[in-house]
Amino acid sequence: MASTSLPPLSSPSAGTSTVQIDLGDRRYDILIGEGLLQQADTFQGLPKSSKALIVTNTTVGPLYTAQLRAAIAPFHKDVLDVELPDGEQFKDWATLNLIFTRLLEEAADRKTVLYALGGGVVGDMTGFAAACYMRGVPFVQVPTTLLAQVDSSVGGKTAINHPAGKNMIGAFYQPQRVICDLVTLDTLPQRELLAGLAEVIKYGPIADLAFLDWLEANMDRLLARDRTALKLAIQRSCEIKAWVVGQDEKEAGLRAILNYGHTFGHAIEAGLGYGEWLHGEAVGTGMVMAADLSARLGLIDAGTAQRITALIARTGLPTKGPKLGAERYLELMQVDKKAEGGEIRFVVIGPLGRATMQGAPEQMVRDVIAAHTA
Amino acid sequence: MASTSLPPLSSPSAGTSTVQIDLGDRRYDILIGEGLLQQADTFQGLPKSSKALIVTNTTVGPLYTAQLRAAIAPFHKDVLDVELPDGEQFKDWATLNLIFTRLLEEAADRKTVLYALGGGVVGDMTGFAAACYMRGVPFVQVPTTLLAQVDSSVGGKTAINHPAGKNMIGAFYQPQRVICDLVTLDTLPQRELLAGLAEVIKYGPIADLAFLDWLEANMDRLLARDRTALKLAIQRSCEIKAWVVGQDEKEAGLRAILNYGHTFGHAIEAGLGYGEWLHGEAVGTGMVMAADLSARLGLIDAGTAQRITALIARTGLPTKGPKLGAERYLELMQVDKKAEGGEIRFVVIGPLGRATMQGAPEQMVRDVIAAHTA
Repeated sequence: MASTSLPPLSSPSAGTSTVQIDLGDRRYDILIGEGLLQQADTFQGLPKSSKALIVTNTTVGPLYTAQLRAAIAPFHKDVLDVELPDGEQFKDWATLNLIFTRLLEEAADRKTVLYALGGGVVGDMTGFAAACYMRGVPFVQVPTTLLAQVDSSVGGKTAINHPAGKNMIGAFYQPQRVICDLVTLDTLPQRELLAGLAEVIKYGPIADLAFLDWLEANMDRLLARDRTALKLAIQRSCEIKAWVVGQDEKEAGLRAILNYGHTFGHAIEAGLGYGEWLHGEAVGTGMVMAADLSARLGLIDAGTAQRITALIARTGLPTKGPKLGAERYLELMQVDKKAEGGEIRFVVIGPLGRATMQGAPEQMVRDVIAAHTA
Repeated sequence: MASTSLPPLSSPSAGTSTVQIDLGDRRYDILIGEGLLQQADTFQGLPKSSKALIVTNTTVGPLYTAQLRAAIAPFHKDVLDVELPDGEQFKDWATLNLIFTRLLEEAADRKTVLYALGGGVVGDMTGFAAACYMRGVPFVQVPTTLLAQVDSSVGGKTAINHPAGKNMIGAFYQPQRVICDLVTLDTLPQRELLAGLAEVIKYGPIADLAFLDWLEANMDRLLARDRTALKLAIQRSCEIKAWVVGQDEKEAGLRAILNYGHTFGHAIEAGLGYGEWLHGEAVGTGMVMAADLSARLGLIDAGTAQRITALIARTGLPTKGPKLGAERYLELMQVDKKAEGGEIRFVVIGPLGRATMQGAPEQMVRDVIAAHTA
């Protein structure tokens, strides 16, 4: 169990940083540093096994599989790999089954270690495959996108999508370690960087005003990929996530605040068809909507909602959702995992730096949708 | 954690018996009795929810869904049901997805309770669906076959099959309660009764000589469906399973003994195509093979192996496996979940009443296969 007070925002530091996720006997470390994929001791102390499987995608695989293979070779007799098609639209059963089939073709046993090398989709699918293969094998997260480094690789949420809803089929299943190599961000397309920044920005309004201030002061450095700034942003995001997850691993309550912007965001993703918008883009717009909803509910003033919106806009992320129609938004949000007894529940901000979950009058939600779609 | 000594074999008793699975905060009861589906208090104290889903199959549904629906109506606003096709050959992703789709169509939230009404296939699939839907919802086992009542509904192993191996994709996920209504066995085809007896017989050689003696003395009563005898057999099977699972929930070691006969048995099922032989039939023949292997390894004498074989033969279960060829058996057994680093490991008996897991010389395994296939 994590302590209940969040450690203060630290100053930028050189070298590798470690953030610990404290879940008792499933405690693990997040390593954040430069060139971790090339350092021999990055993978020390992890489970060894006869076979290992690197799961990656057709974009990331050609860039980093060879490097990862070399780094983990001392710990496994055979290092296999499988390349999945790249994109949220492939986060489904058919693609997941490529992992199972590869493992079974190779008669991989239940000590086999899986390595997730890629972004959020690869991490979510590899984690879910690890949770299910022979009812559970160990896995290691090697996130190569900003979004995965600051959010999806940390905390053990794994899942695939169902045509009727995002991340509807999955498991809480913790990795053995999370390895965030800042160097891998060099190859990240700018659109993906911005999508990751949406999840970084999220942590300010829900939990940390000092971090929100810092983000406003340092957004230009982040957009220019200043490595020191990126490292601090990743570390702080992981610290906040670790603090939340350590208190509520399975989202009985508090953890839901990490879904700020996600209720509207998931509706955008599912409504347009997965892969049309990036997850982080949808979350960015979802945060704008949820900030407005918070203001309409009287939890923050209009200026504060505007402050959140302005920061998102500054990154270049979209701040207007697609015109799916209010009916379709409502229908899609009704299957959100936070809904209960048919009532949609939103993560709202108020006061700034604190988040809660609550319902809202339907007409108010319709007004929010109308005001932020184009 | 269960105590490490198995309670002694009890005498037959009237009324409902309770066996507790002791897994700390995931402790739950197995109820064994007559007419439990019609007693109001059978379902007391379970999680309540707005929606509930009864998962059953096209054979069992028409017999018992209405009864179960009436019994749980006080605890849920809407009781939905879904009927899966009946048979091991449908224990796959496509069928599992029928459950997810039904839940999502109804916007079932993450408090929704699933009820597994049927045999082992329904229980395994419902449990796995419950483990994965929104990363976990509660479920209740209502096993209606002998095999499910004595084995598969107890202990939290859930799974679906992959064409390359049985139960390869699944989760350890415990039910909230297991409800074994003896009356449901009245509608069980004789072939299914025998398949269930295979799993009952299993518990003697691996853990309980007194129970083995009792089974030999009472087999005629069991075959004639004497309800008192069946109740004692179910209770004792559940007691032994609870004792094993309480010590080793996730099969780090001891729990593997419950797979006596299953290494050969799974190869028979996968080799013929799922659904050709019933699971219990394959396990029956698998136990004959594993008894012979135990004797060839010098762990028991030939007479003891013969004693196990004779008891299985007396039920009418097959004692010879299909002629798939030794190569095919070996290939299929290599993906068994107990295999490690390519070595097949077998649950063997020795001395009688105790089981261990070990490898065996390949030629010896070939000889066993040759001796027991026809």
